[in-house]
Amino acid sequence: MRISELAAATDTSVATLKYYLREGMLPPGAPVSQTRSEYGAEHVRRVGVIRALTDVAGLPVQRARAVLALIDHPGPDLFDELGRAIAQLPPTIDPDAPPPADPEGAYPRARAVIDALGQVWDPRYAAVAQLEQALEAAERAGLAMTPERLAAYAPAIRAIAEYDVSRIPADSSDAIGYAVLGTALYEPVIAALRRLAHQDVAARRLGSPELGGTAQAG
Amino acid sequence: MRISELAAATDTSVATLKYYLREGMLPPGAPVSQTRSEYGAEHVRRVGVIRALTDVAGLPVQRARAVLALIDHPGPDLFDELGRAIAQLPPTIDPDAPPPADPEGAYPRARAVIDALGQVWDPRYAAVAQLEQALEAAERAGLAMTPERLAAYAPAIRAIAEYDVSRIPADSSDAIGYAVLGTALYEPVIAALRRLAHQDVAARRLGSPELGGTAQAG
Repeated sequence: MRISELAAATDTSVATLKYYLREGMLPPGAPVSQTRSEYGAEHVRRVGVIRALTDVAGLPVQRARAVLALIDHPGPDLFDELGRAIAQLPPTIDPDAPPPADPEGAYPRARAVIDALGQVWDPRYAAVAQLEQALEAAERAGLAMTPERLAAYAPAIRAIAEYDVSRIPADSSDAIGYAVLGTALYEPVIAALRRLAHQDVAARRLGSPELGGTAQAG
Repeated sequence: MRISELAAATDTSVATLKYYLREGMLPPGAPVSQTRSEYGAEHVRRVGVIRALTDVAGLPVQRARAVLALIDHPGPDLFDELGRAIAQLPPTIDPDAPPPADPEGAYPRARAVIDALGQVWDPRYAAVAQLEQALEAAERAGLAMTPERLAAYAPAIRAIAEYDVSRIPADSSDAIGYAVLGTALYEPVIAALRRLAHQDVAARRLGSPELGGTAQAG
């Protein structure tokens, strides 16, 4: 297909596609004349990946380019590469901020939760700082995490993560792409499903006029 | 406490507190002289709520004010008020966009998922459009929702939502505050816990040098 058709197929402007091409984020098409290149299904997929990173995950283009580089040229240690790629996703910690002077004591709320779950503790992992920030904000608003809430959430989240990891492709490059996209794209899906489940559970408990006509037995 | 002490207690500038006071988002303190008011624990809590809405949920101040108004003056129908309050949270649908001409057919991916789960279907609920957008983005990036993934996620998300709703306070005003804050504040907690669970599950499956020394038996 021509670049105009690729634009239509991906709902992306030709100017944006040319920008991705110049930045090396989108591989060039096969040249068919001096002024025309031919694009294929792999380009459609790649534009979907770029837009997932920029539009859904909200990455600045340069950061999206760094993630694409990790996907295209994975290093030898898959576990390390996965951590490096996921750490690019927001909410990211300010890359110019100095690392905490005492990483072992810097994340007390996250540490308590991770210890309670018996999970791997590695304060260099970006999600640790992310969890600390989220727990601190909840605490300030008067809705601190409780052992009871953690006990309700943890097995559910573990079940989701077990499924996610069970689907990791064997090939390293595919694995990193899957991990990054699965993390970024399914966080909003999970958030929306939770809100819809709240609505459904609340409708059944609090009563709602809609429920009578349209809901099926749960 | 004085306003300067309230600022210190909430890690918020005096200028920002004065702005909240002017906007009516923060109730005035008890006047103790012509130039001084006294603030208490309820002000600390309220600033935590405002900052949860603005900093964590990312609401523009005017939208945060609308949520606070719903919390402070709940209407007679709790289920409706909950929906209205949650709909203020991002990702919001452009309020100037016209409603879909065919609301029943506008969200095919979300509809299929909600029907598969046997949940309440109400296309006016903002999370429906949110789910549709998230599912469409996943599809475009080549990671479409599958029945298998939905079957793995749905019971886990339902368990989280059941716990959340079971903790709703009986008082309407408290209930709306709890629902808004619980939705906004615990989405990042859940996202961070999922990323940490990924790391833990992947470390156990793929092997990681860190695992030997620090991890406990899972």
